Amino acid sequence: MKNLFLTISVSLLATACAHHHPGSALGNAPDHFGVKEVGSFHIGGRQVTLSGLPEKEIVFTAGAAPFKVNPNGDFEVEQMYVQYVKLHEHSRKARYPLLMWHGGGLSGVTWETKPDGKPGWQNFFLKAGHDVYVSDAVERGRASWARYPEIFKTEPFFRTKKEGWELFRLGPEGSYQTDPAKRVAYPEGTQFPVEAFEQFAKQGIPRWATNDPATQLAYDQYVQKVCPCVIMVHSQGGNFTFNAALKAPGMVKAVIAIEPSGVPGEKADLTPLIGIPHLFVWGDYLERYPLWQKITPNVDRFEQALRNQGTDVTRIDLPKTGVRGNSHMLMMDRNSDAIAQMIQDWMVAKNLSR
Amino acid sequence: MKNLFLTISVSLLATACAHHHPGSALGNAPDHFGVKEVGSFHIGGRQVTLSGLPEKEIVFTAGAAPFKVNPNGDFEVEQMYVQYVKLHEHSRKARYPLLMWHGGGLSGVTWETKPDGKPGWQNFFLKAGHDVYVSDAVERGRASWARYPEIFKTEPFFRTKKEGWELFRLGPEGSYQTDPAKRVAYPEGTQFPVEAFEQFAKQGIPRWATNDPATQLAYDQYVQKVCPCVIMVHSQGGNFTFNAALKAPGMVKAVIAIEPSGVPGEKADLTPLIGIPHLFVWGDYLERYPLWQKITPNVDRFEQALRNQGTDVTRIDLPKTGVRGNSHMLMMDRNSDAIAQMIQDWMVAKNLSR
Repeated sequence: MKNLFLTISVSLLATACAHHHPGSALGNAPDHFGVKEVGSFHIGGRQVTLSGLPEKEIVFTAGAAPFKVNPNGDFEVEQMYVQYVKLHEHSRKARYPLLMWHGGGLSGVTWETKPDGKPGWQNFFLKAGHDVYVSDAVERGRASWARYPEIFKTEPFFRTKKEGWELFRLGPEGSYQTDPAKRVAYPEGTQFPVEAFEQFAKQGIPRWATNDPATQLAYDQYVQKVCPCVIMVHSQGGNFTFNAALKAPGMVKAVIAIEPSGVPGEKADLTPLIGIPHLFVWGDYLERYPLWQKITPNVDRFEQALRNQGTDVTRIDLPKTGVRGNSHMLMMDRNSDAIAQMIQDWMVAKNLSR
Repeated sequence: MKNLFLTISVSLLATACAHHHPGSALGNAPDHFGVKEVGSFHIGGRQVTLSGLPEKEIVFTAGAAPFKVNPNGDFEVEQMYVQYVKLHEHSRKARYPLLMWHGGGLSGVTWETKPDGKPGWQNFFLKAGHDVYVSDAVERGRASWARYPEIFKTEPFFRTKKEGWELFRLGPEGSYQTDPAKRVAYPEGTQFPVEAFEQFAKQGIPRWATNDPATQLAYDQYVQKVCPCVIMVHSQGGNFTFNAALKAPGMVKAVIAIEPSGVPGEKADLTPLIGIPHLFVWGDYLERYPLWQKITPNVDRFEQALRNQGTDVTRIDLPKTGVRGNSHMLMMDRNSDAIAQMIQDWMVAKNLSR
């Protein structure tokens, strides 16, 4: 009898918490969420054995005796890294886990706290009741990287701050200057917190041009492990996401594509995506960059092909809705919460979340 | 009046949740914890400008036209990465945030889910009521890395699986084999889940021998930003931790050193550590490896120097307490929760946590 009584008490408390956690009783945003587990895993990859390479002498400290390192042996390579926050059932409102896939030259940090120190979309969607998974693709961040040219076939390249400033549309081409005080963002206004640009540049990760097949393979294994799911993807991750969804029919329940820069080719069979709702979100100033003018027609062609076959497609062109000045890094822009809310509303409308 | 009533209701619900969250009413471990924010930041680093380097042609896809990349420009380098989970006040029992610093050739993943898929120490100490901060040092994981030899002065090196197997004391020297079925761990038993060794090897990160000053600098800035705090450190991180504590008197409230492999030199003035409780934890089989026999006397000399000056030092030699078979990766061993509980009990005894 005593155990039964305790069980009932806890159940009542749980109910009270369920109302308290989301703050819905007062119509306010919750100030916290209940978490069951924070964790991570690596997935994909393979073992590679190197042999016949010469020993290297490494000097750890100036003046100290060199230390011999034999680079030959077995290595695990081409895995990816996934970190998750699983909500307690009281706090969960979404039907499926939300997987956030980053873009080129970046890692999962894209979705975390914004460069200006304010909470990012990882935290927003946790508060909104989603189990959130944030990953680093093969070669990036905690996924680690492998020796080249023996394993990765080419050398990596590093994005300059100038390229980031322009490619991500913070200011017009040619407006980047080394001295932050001399940089000129869009005179009409940018939503990106340009005063935090150095902080954003610290998130940059070197990348290789030749790892796409390994990256796709690891993403495919990730989908098999975690889905059914919803995937939110940014920029270069687009092609990996659409292909992953094509290869795992029924596993990806929706795709939220934030300025995707890559899509499957014209000849791809898209019928596995017929029943999968898609949301495309675009920022401002795309028409001012030759590079973006080269990218967008291809993505628009893909979007149209989805519509033509009856896929449920929604497109949010922020400037057309009166929201101006958004950069390519929408999730870091000053109005990121408002955009996240549009996405959350879309998920609710598509019955993916309460 | 209506607002006042709502405020009181919420306050009552909060009280109910406070009892429910820690599970203390039933004397059970909690099944979840309340989180206020999950976030991250980069700290430290500097801008470097490269010039005079030749353009490179990059081929993104076999057969496609090469893409010209100009490697010259501005870069942010030598920052480190920090991720945190801040608990809601109902779930917090610790007096200070707990910072977890990894060892050599590894990243913050050390503290996350174990290679065998079971929850790691990050999750354990969150459940125990600590705000937990997990970082990647300069050059590792999400901290990113910089072009060499122009910025980082030397080339990186990669740890082989054989070196990991032996250095981390999973089996005797010479017992590593490429084929997992042929590997022989300690016949007396190892606590490391050797069946998950491939998974563990995926966590490995290349490292440089020449970045210690930049690494220390970033760690020092991290301490200034986040502390007062307690630092838990593993292996190679030891020296960075002790030095960080020496340089920030009063900021580091306790040090928990898990098999530290580096310590300040004999001439260092340790008096700033007099009032700072220190815990040292050691696993098994140290006496069987020449390398560990070279490392431990120096660490023991440091421990004795702390004791000699009146620092409150506790040492847990697990084999001496009857706990056998622990590897260098104590936080991944099968009995990791039991060891974490010893550490938690020590923190409670030192008035660092309830």
